[in-house]
Amino acid sequence: MPYESRIMKIDFCSDVGSSFGKYRIGEDEEVMKYITSANIDCGWHAGDPVVMDRTVNLAMQNDVNVGAHPGFPDPLGFGQRNMDCTQNEIIQYILYQLGALQAFCTANKTSLTHVKPAGNLYLMAVEHKDVAEACAEAIFRFDPNLVFVTLAGQKGDMMSEIGKKASLRVAREFFADREYTSEGTLVSRRLPGSLITDAVQAAERVLMVLEENRLIASDGTTLQIKANTICIHSFQSGSAAMARSIREILERNSVTFEAMDRLV
Amino acid sequence: MPYESRIMKIDFCSDVGSSFGKYRIGEDEEVMKYITSANIDCGWHAGDPVVMDRTVNLAMQNDVNVGAHPGFPDPLGFGQRNMDCTQNEIIQYILYQLGALQAFCTANKTSLTHVKPAGNLYLMAVEHKDVAEACAEAIFRFDPNLVFVTLAGQKGDMMSEIGKKASLRVAREFFADREYTSEGTLVSRRLPGSLITDAVQAAERVLMVLEENRLIASDGTTLQIKANTICIHSFQSGSAAMARSIREILERNSVTFEAMDRLV
Amino acid sequence: MPYESRIMKIDFCSDVGSSFGKYRIGEDEEVMKYITSANIDCGWHAGDPVVMDRTVNLAMQNDVNVGAHPGFPDPLGFGQRNMDCTQNEIIQYILYQLGALQAFCTANKTSLTHVKPAGNLYLMAVEHKDVAEACAEAIFRFDPNLVFVTLAGQKGDMMSEIGKKASLRVAREFFADREYTSEGTLVSRRLPGSLITDAVQAAERVLMVLEENRLIASDGTTLQIKANTICIHSFQSGSAAMARSIREILERNSVTFEAMDRLV
Amino acid sequence: MPYESRIMKIDFCSDVGSSFGKYRIGEDEEVMKYITSANIDCGWHAGDPVVMDRTVNLAMQNDVNVGAHPGFPDPLGFGQRNMDCTQNEIIQYILYQLGALQAFCTANKTSLTHVKPAGNLYLMAVEHKDVAEACAEAIFRFDPNLVFVTLAGQKGDMMSEIGKKASLRVAREFFADREYTSEGTLVSRRLPGSLITDAVQAAERVLMVLEENRLIASDGTTLQIKANTICIHSFQSGSAAMARSIREILERNSVTFEAMDRLV
Repeated sequence: MPYESRIMKIDFCSDVGSSFGKYRIGEDEEVMKYITSANIDCGWHAGDPVVMDRTVNLAMQNDVNVGAHPGFPDPLGFGQRNMDCTQNEIIQYILYQLGALQAFCTANKTSLTHVKPAGNLYLMAVEHKDVAEACAEAIFRFDPNLVFVTLAGQKGDMMSEIGKKASLRVAREFFADREYTSEGTLVSRRLPGSLITDAVQAAERVLMVLEENRLIASDGTTLQIKANTICIHSFQSGSAAMARSIREILERNSVTFEAMDRLV
Repeated sequence: MPYESRIMKIDFCSDVGSSFGKYRIGEDEEVMKYITSANIDCGWHAGDPVVMDRTVNLAMQNDVNVGAHPGFPDPLGFGQRNMDCTQNEIIQYILYQLGALQAFCTANKTSLTHVKPAGNLYLMAVEHKDVAEACAEAIFRFDPNLVFVTLAGQKGDMMSEIGKKASLRVAREFFADREYTSEGTLVSRRLPGSLITDAVQAAERVLMVLEENRLIASDGTTLQIKANTICIHSFQSGSAAMARSIREILERNSVTFEAMDRLV
Repeated sequence: MPYESRIMKIDFCSDVGSSFGKYRIGEDEEVMKYITSANIDCGWHAGDPVVMDRTVNLAMQNDVNVGAHPGFPDPLGFGQRNMDCTQNEIIQYILYQLGALQAFCTANKTSLTHVKPAGNLYLMAVEHKDVAEACAEAIFRFDPNLVFVTLAGQKGDMMSEIGKKASLRVAREFFADREYTSEGTLVSRRLPGSLITDAVQAAERVLMVLEENRLIASDGTTLQIKANTICIHSFQSGSAAMARSIREILERNSVTFEAMDRLV
Repeated sequence: MPYESRIMKIDFCSDVGSSFGKYRIGEDEEVMKYITSANIDCGWHAGDPVVMDRTVNLAMQNDVNVGAHPGFPDPLGFGQRNMDCTQNEIIQYILYQLGALQAFCTANKTSLTHVKPAGNLYLMAVEHKDVAEACAEAIFRFDPNLVFVTLAGQKGDMMSEIGKKASLRVAREFFADREYTSEGTLVSRRLPGSLITDAVQAAERVLMVLEENRLIASDGTTLQIKANTICIHSFQSGSAAMARSIREILERNSVTFEAMDRLV
């Protein structure tokens, strides 16, 4: 591996702000110390206005960029179930959530930098052209300067191309805490073994992706993958330890961190 | 009455955009033809993203100013039940809804001009200092140039003063389609006779308020009242006919119409 | 056509109780006069407790059997969007809704007689074995004497067989107010021409189904179909007129009406 | 203290089943080992169908009686905010929730034994005659054999009398994990010091209530109180340790445990 490829810059992001009312979930306060971009839930599949305000503040205190993480109107399913919405519905649902989160940015004197569809809205955007188009269209209508977060690897090419075609900047994302299928998508949460819970293993996978652009899928297949941002889910148990571990191992390997908004 | 007092300018507003999913309510398309400011529901007590986008468009087509009508998280009660929220909860709930509606303004190249709390959030703001303060604070944090709609008449003075103290412009509102108590607040919707349904009667009341600054309460008491804006509820049956009637009678009496944003 | 086939008994049902809070939808008061079984929404995709109580009462006043119409947790989509739930989720969601409606039956001294999954829960049960199994399982656990309403025609055979295998009585249903595809399922509501709005045309289709066991699909194909119950949707505009028309034409043609609970 | 007063029987109950979708709250699995009656959330302010089924099962495995814990339609506020509903709304809301929970009892071959209004529905029933009446009416309509859980002490007399007047059995409840005001109601959760978090202190308070019918309020006042059931909230942190502590200390002091259904 040539020396120059080792001078790497990467964004480190996390899905945060998933608490709702009395329900607390996620290790946001710890995780925020290690990331550069926060994908904040917008009160539909998770999160609520009080949590959103608190999470925007937490991001600012940690010098973390604020992005939106809009999802399906399915709090009971945490946004993790396919819903068969029309393109227009998806566009308006995302616009609504972007505006809602921007209000807390405005109130706190900051601004959104990126958008990542949440849960199965993201997974459907990977699979279905019309869903990806609706996501890109909503972001473009709201603010064409926002970065659109899409799946890294060949499987995410369609979603990414649709973002670029809509004149959006695109950040390709690798999930450090999830197993991948040989097709390059995430192993369903309904299946056993879908999560990577070992912090060191997760960090090593990330390093392989960054240094070799390679990923070993759950069935042993090797996938080619180039990523602009590494993601972990704050709501998964052990996320703080994993964030710290990934950050440490990457820094030890000369990886530097930069928010996706300045990378793509 | 001196001649000059008859050259009057007034805003005419309506609470609109209350439909939700398959449920249609309100005579928005007709009502929009006669008003100058629209108070659009923001998806909490009523409305939804698809309806919000459609209603913002409808307002623009009719050259009507767009305002937000944020309410309690009580779709089952249509926002018309008191909820005992904390100041912080109210601030964040309103911010959320303002941002959400602004997204549809942004997508449609327009901008919010005013905010009117909805249903019992409004009625609680009339009665409770902390609720009025929370409303004013949320509006100020979002955009200090927005007009804050408050109850006209002595009963609404506290709410109005709190708005001014928060450096907001304030538009005092008279409800053309509702009976008033002798205290100067609205007769509860739970009581019989709370609504004025006769279009001509409603128009005559408005004229008396504008020309004589007087209003006859439900028990016959005479109230002093000065208003910057006249409101009808689109969701009440017969609203389109009432809007037309009020507009016609007022125009016949030399009243001219101007959006509250340019009046206060 | 042999004489005996003209002595027909059929159930006539309608999806009712879809109002929610201040939102009124459906022509339930009129429709109830003509039907023998009511499929009452259970507060998830439509309906609410006050509406459920009122609708159970209305059914009793009209000597109409009370059935449950449980749906997806998607009020924004009126239950008319696919949601990818697990079998266990569907079982528990249906149990919840059956119990909720039974409470209003208990309070009003009556009892449920049948269950018809609502909207896209029904359509998914037609297509997907695991969804149909979950529906049947929930009904069986709640009360094995309840009738399970399934799609008439070959397309509904799988759903019906699953009901029978679960030891449930099954009533095969024909939709009088909807166009069918050549495959024997309903034309999607998202497509133009999915609804039959002409009352006489609807009644004539029903008569052809009853007398000749034949149905003309939207593309002209002829389908074989035998039905135990005829359904119209109260929430569709014109439902009362359609109900009256169907009832009259069928009675004129010697069809008699009997609740599905006594037919299957 | 005379010997006979030391042969005491008491119910020990807990508010359980508050998890929602992906959100887990409460130490139900541990708490269930020590209690005799479970007050299970019914999916409105907390809980969901999957959680309800699981919690009914958990209760049965631990030989714990199943009761309903219906609350306001306010998941965002966890049912802990006053909502100004009409009597009819409250009646129908409670009926709905009782039926929903009974469905899981039916499916699991058990039955409800008692009902305890949840959160601020309970607190409003203590203060407002019409709310208490609505609670009692709903329970009576659903099943007049169910026990109605009401606040112990003079402050709870009105609520209790309303239950008795409605022909219901009444179980008077003492909250082991909450501070009381000198008026005999709970110190608001919004105030500091409203919770008792020390397990031993909680157990000693319970013992004083049982042995001396006395309670020291937060301001030092002594209140007279007789209770049939002792409650702790599973959703409060440390609830499992507190349940164990209370059970042990009471047993050491010759208190025996019996479900409220067999006590009142």
